[in-house]
Amino acid sequence: MQNRVTRLFQIKYPIIQAGMVWTAGWRLASAVSQAGGLGLIGSGSMYPEILREHIRRAKAATTAPFGVNLPLVYPDPESHIRIILEEGIRIVFTSAGNPATWTPLLTAHGVTVAHVVSSARFAQKAEAAGCSLVVAEGFEAGGHNGREETTTFCLVPLVKRSVKIPVVAAGGISGGRAMMAALALGAEGVQVGTRFVASEEASCDPRFKQAVLDASEGDTQLSLKKLMPVRLMKNRFYEKVLDAESRCAGKEELAQLLGKGRAKRGMFEGDLQDGELEIGQVSALITDLKPARIIMEDLWQEFTAMRREIEGWEIR
Amino acid sequence: MQNRVTRLFQIKYPIIQAGMVWTAGWRLASAVSQAGGLGLIGSGSMYPEILREHIRRAKAATTAPFGVNLPLVYPDPESHIRIILEEGIRIVFTSAGNPATWTPLLTAHGVTVAHVVSSARFAQKAEAAGCSLVVAEGFEAGGHNGREETTTFCLVPLVKRSVKIPVVAAGGISGGRAMMAALALGAEGVQVGTRFVASEEASCDPRFKQAVLDASEGDTQLSLKKLMPVRLMKNRFYEKVLDAESRCAGKEELAQLLGKGRAKRGMFEGDLQDGELEIGQVSALITDLKPARIIMEDLWQEFTAMRREIEGWEIR
Repeated sequence: MQNRVTRLFQIKYPIIQAGMVWTAGWRLASAVSQAGGLGLIGSGSMYPEILREHIRRAKAATTAPFGVNLPLVYPDPESHIRIILEEGIRIVFTSAGNPATWTPLLTAHGVTVAHVVSSARFAQKAEAAGCSLVVAEGFEAGGHNGREETTTFCLVPLVKRSVKIPVVAAGGISGGRAMMAALALGAEGVQVGTRFVASEEASCDPRFKQAVLDASEGDTQLSLKKLMPVRLMKNRFYEKVLDAESRCAGKEELAQLLGKGRAKRGMFEGDLQDGELEIGQVSALITDLKPARIIMEDLWQEFTAMRREIEGWEIR
Repeated sequence: MQNRVTRLFQIKYPIIQAGMVWTAGWRLASAVSQAGGLGLIGSGSMYPEILREHIRRAKAATTAPFGVNLPLVYPDPESHIRIILEEGIRIVFTSAGNPATWTPLLTAHGVTVAHVVSSARFAQKAEAAGCSLVVAEGFEAGGHNGREETTTFCLVPLVKRSVKIPVVAAGGISGGRAMMAALALGAEGVQVGTRFVASEEASCDPRFKQAVLDASEGDTQLSLKKLMPVRLMKNRFYEKVLDAESRCAGKEELAQLLGKGRAKRGMFEGDLQDGELEIGQVSALITDLKPARIIMEDLWQEFTAMRREIEGWEIR
């Protein structure tokens, strides 16, 4: 399928693997790119030199295009950007920050920049800053999220009508039927996160992967809204946050409760009770651990089967 | 388009107009049914004898099938049910309560019962209670909503895989592209609420309709979670609730703040500042007031155009 997204990144399928912290290392990114999608290395949980190593390993594993996800909220994006430019990365997805700050530098070096947004307003800012694409990430997505809580169903059309650059949908998408839904709403591609957490190549702890497979409806919640809203799997840490919030705890108390390194503890070290487990609502639909290549194949097969089903509808 | 939903209700299009309080009277319901959808009279804001009048007027206005929405949380559903049976209503959509209590009585009288759910668990209960259809209503929908906050994108597939009866999607659907998305996710029809608030036939106050047309992204929020979660348009009343909640107000204080008759005051009497305005996130996408018949026609036209677009995609 050729469209603006596949042409922009020179990929076979308009399917992007989200650059998730503690999960999207070189193994996952290169496997997705090798399978015809766009793999992204999640630099948000990497020291600069670790990022360099992941980039080099991904290059060794595939000649297909891949990119790096760069959260702009961390104190020092510059050293990551230096590595990205030194290593000749051509595709960067930025998120959680102002795209106007770093996009011009990146594009001046020939990098194609996409930005993840939770509103049409931010999408317009990204377009104005020189981004080539926006990812419209709905309320149901895992990890950090917008305060307006706009869902994928409403966000994609809102973003679509606000910008000229292509829109990729994220949040709630684990299979080909959801991909068809996203494209019907106006997206030209999908970004898939949670589904790839439950992949063989994901670098997170196997216990976290198992928790994703075990998750049922209602097992995630947008949390820590006074700090920075984040969708978490419910566990002991989440219950502590909930308890503090129900006592009207302030920002300081919540920040102290969160502490440092809790995401690593949960997702990378597999502490399912006291770690922070960032995951999407769609985890309730995922029941099997698969290699990234099979995830891609199944997703594409379900998408084309859905298309044939639509073609078969008798409509007068 | 013929499928289980159109056959169940003997309608032309699998499009159901939500039976919204203070908004869905006989004029709206009969106009939607006359245009080939399924109109629902919203009995939740009607005294029994008012409901009888609306049913009789709808019967006089159309020979097409229409139904009644019946919220099961109000103190006295029995008198409404008596009217429904006396007037020979054949289709009832129940919501916000236990479907096991009243479904057997209704089906024993030959009524087809559908139930609105916010989770797969409730959908299974509805199926077990004898309902013929479930409406899977996502977090983005207006009015009362589930505590699990599952969005349409995630809820529809979750419900679909849990029941055998047909699933209708609600929440975030105002046009034909969203209808295609809902059907791709596994729904066999859509329930449309917010779009019909901005219709000529809606019985709510014109000022409320104008507020829906004026709404932008982020202008609604799921609120009053300690009582019963409800998606509201942000206004002075909402700000008061937010302020009370930020002070950790208890149920009693919130119930007192809500008081009685606030929904009527907002939606029916047009008090945009101190009334309760129940509306969906998709209000941000709606910009024109139209007759219900034109809403139906435009929705169907957009849906079939989207289908042709999908058929035209070059996929190898």
